[in-house]
Amino acid sequence: MTDTPTTDAPTTEELAVQGIAFSELAERFGTPLYVYDGDEIAARLRGLLDRLHPGVEVFYSLKANPNVSVCALLHSLGARAEVSSLTELITAQRAGVPAEHIMFLGPGKSRAEVTACVKDDVLLICESFGELALIDEVAAGLGTTARVVLRVNPAFAVKGSGLTMGGKPRQFGIDEEALLADPELAGRHPAVRLSGFQVYMGTRILTEEVVAENTGRILDLAERLSARLGVPLDLVDVGGGLGVAYFAGERDLDPERTVELLNPHFEDFAARHPGTRLVMELGRYLVGHSGTYAVRVRYVKESRGEQFAIADGGTNHHMAAVGIGSFVKRNFPMRLLNRAGSDELRKWNVTGPLCTPNDTLGKAVELPADLEPGDLVGVDRSGAYGPTASPVHFLSHGYPAEVLVHRGRARLIRSRDDAEEMLARQILHDFTTDED
Amino acid sequence: MTDTPTTDAPTTEELAVQGIAFSELAERFGTPLYVYDGDEIAARLRGLLDRLHPGVEVFYSLKANPNVSVCALLHSLGARAEVSSLTELITAQRAGVPAEHIMFLGPGKSRAEVTACVKDDVLLICESFGELALIDEVAAGLGTTARVVLRVNPAFAVKGSGLTMGGKPRQFGIDEEALLADPELAGRHPAVRLSGFQVYMGTRILTEEVVAENTGRILDLAERLSARLGVPLDLVDVGGGLGVAYFAGERDLDPERTVELLNPHFEDFAARHPGTRLVMELGRYLVGHSGTYAVRVRYVKESRGEQFAIADGGTNHHMAAVGIGSFVKRNFPMRLLNRAGSDELRKWNVTGPLCTPNDTLGKAVELPADLEPGDLVGVDRSGAYGPTASPVHFLSHGYPAEVLVHRGRARLIRSRDDAEEMLARQILHDFTTDED
Repeated sequence: MTDTPTTDAPTTEELAVQGIAFSELAERFGTPLYVYDGDEIAARLRGLLDRLHPGVEVFYSLKANPNVSVCALLHSLGARAEVSSLTELITAQRAGVPAEHIMFLGPGKSRAEVTACVKDDVLLICESFGELALIDEVAAGLGTTARVVLRVNPAFAVKGSGLTMGGKPRQFGIDEEALLADPELAGRHPAVRLSGFQVYMGTRILTEEVVAENTGRILDLAERLSARLGVPLDLVDVGGGLGVAYFAGERDLDPERTVELLNPHFEDFAARHPGTRLVMELGRYLVGHSGTYAVRVRYVKESRGEQFAIADGGTNHHMAAVGIGSFVKRNFPMRLLNRAGSDELRKWNVTGPLCTPNDTLGKAVELPADLEPGDLVGVDRSGAYGPTASPVHFLSHGYPAEVLVHRGRARLIRSRDDAEEMLARQILHDFTTDED
Repeated sequence: MTDTPTTDAPTTEELAVQGIAFSELAERFGTPLYVYDGDEIAARLRGLLDRLHPGVEVFYSLKANPNVSVCALLHSLGARAEVSSLTELITAQRAGVPAEHIMFLGPGKSRAEVTACVKDDVLLICESFGELALIDEVAAGLGTTARVVLRVNPAFAVKGSGLTMGGKPRQFGIDEEALLADPELAGRHPAVRLSGFQVYMGTRILTEEVVAENTGRILDLAERLSARLGVPLDLVDVGGGLGVAYFAGERDLDPERTVELLNPHFEDFAARHPGTRLVMELGRYLVGHSGTYAVRVRYVKESRGEQFAIADGGTNHHMAAVGIGSFVKRNFPMRLLNRAGSDELRKWNVTGPLCTPNDTLGKAVELPADLEPGDLVGVDRSGAYGPTASPVHFLSHGYPAEVLVHRGRARLIRSRDDAEEMLARQILHDFTTDED
């Protein structure tokens, strides 16, 4: 017996996704690689949909993971789509989501984006008076009426979120006070049908009571605004912000408890407003748990008493690992993926191929002492805000491959960038003469 | 007279690059847009090359801005190339840089990268014992000898850098102590010709004395290591780390003073080692000043007493604006690009199209009070670590366009991503049946 830390050896099942070993996935698709577990995504969605008040519609926020196959999978399971750019709108449409099940959100919509939504009758969540005027102008020009839900920046903030969106000076939505002071708003925009309200309080909420209180207050605000402005409550979108536990000391939301606390708010509201569509937006919560970022160790070394494992991918594909919502570096859950490894553990700094000390996926992570070149290291809970939220062009390494495992089959859903792809849109000019 | 802040109106020249108005560039190439001033890049390089000891070679670090035309311009002006990935190597070669003027650096080189360098006789800066063994194996397999410079992690750290690379436990280089303890190193790698040393102390140094002291200590260390290990000093690379002043209170390096302090170190060393190539690596210093990130304001709004200008581009293209080397948000220099604007100034939060409050290019920036939709706002000193160091896929907005102005001509050097480009490498599967 020694004092060195040890851990229970992982089972074969833990070194695989739906029975397909990570080592096989890495061999087949190469590394660095993102692997998403489609069954996990399905379980997350069903865990809510099967329990939630039947009137509640779940919209998948593509920004969390905008891959067209991830969107198609969620759509096949009953989710709708919330998008925030023209490309995300096209993605949702290609994934088969009908226009009436898509809504478009975001503080800086372009005229082209507004026009696409009005033409296809995609619901617009309007974030400012200026945008409302633009929507009205575009709809009038097209000889139609645009359905618009107003995003409200409430006067209250909710405690217990990782990043607060409401109750502060923000680029999002229209201040509650400004709306209450403008009862003539609807009349000034004849080509717009104001259809309800949306509020998004904050992200990464990990307390069931906060989610429920949040929702109750938003439903109450929507009723007050509707009465004051004469806006019908065709739809109320209570946002989302349901979190994922990433770090030591954090605990995942219990879906059963969350819904148990949420449903009474929805039931009360639905009893008073039976015709209102109720909407929740979920991104991170649906896909965050499903993903593992797998990198292969290229070198191990010691420097001044610390152990380094230098891998083929790093924060260029996984920016969140640098630290989210915290100025202190906290590690995502990490593990050896291709074998059990020694019982004895050591503290490893797992770094990537970049030329900056910030390129650290994990700092002093406990991993098997015998970690060696060729091993696969995984960063778990990496299904949301992965490569799309990372500087994938840094050092010209490019976008990693992405694989979705569904019903026991692993399928490539995004091929990795190569040099030709990285250079395809660059244009070389000749500077040795004055000619091109 | 009022107490509101005012500023001198910008001249027509200041609203242009080499006589081409920003408004014209934005009209012609669209926004968001990166504009690089080639004359500024040339002036930066010449300011050093014309003054430095004639034996010193300047290598351009492509990671700062890996566009092939930026590299070609610098090459046409006498710079060589330091690369850190296979794509950067190919970029430098396409830009016309001959293999003997390229070196390859980075802690996580792949076998493919090492092989490409050995085949083309590109100088390898080796960062670990494990990598040295790999280079030896690859070179032996190819029946050749690889030229290798050892990167050293010195026992000393230099004060006054923005991000320290040396003197600490690091993934970079081989600890000085470990090298001194291994005098048989060369003998164990017969297919490697050890050719010198490289040391990179840290980045963003803004004090001339620190640059010089740094260099002096590195040259001294190279001499000591050479004597101890019997490694010839074919080449000594003193790194770089020369900074750019971004924030209030910072001052740019004076090139004249920098060289005045540097040259005596190079002269002394060259007198003792007349056959040694002396190398400096410069990235940010050469291109940082040259770039302006130009975004167009889509909406202006007030929220709880603060003014917001919401633009068509944000931190998805300019991650450094979120904050570099500091936990406190500091603003890059920003200005109105398309017109003088009102004399009266206000504090504006300039934000982008993302759905996170972190998407703030500038917080409480003083800009004309009459800022309005359609205006162009520029973030200056953005020529280094721009889009390639940013999450350009976030919300699927894609890579912005890049333009290089050289000798009065503006030329597109990178076209912007559109939806087709963003989706081209994604693969849609059908999840409504078990078939593909």
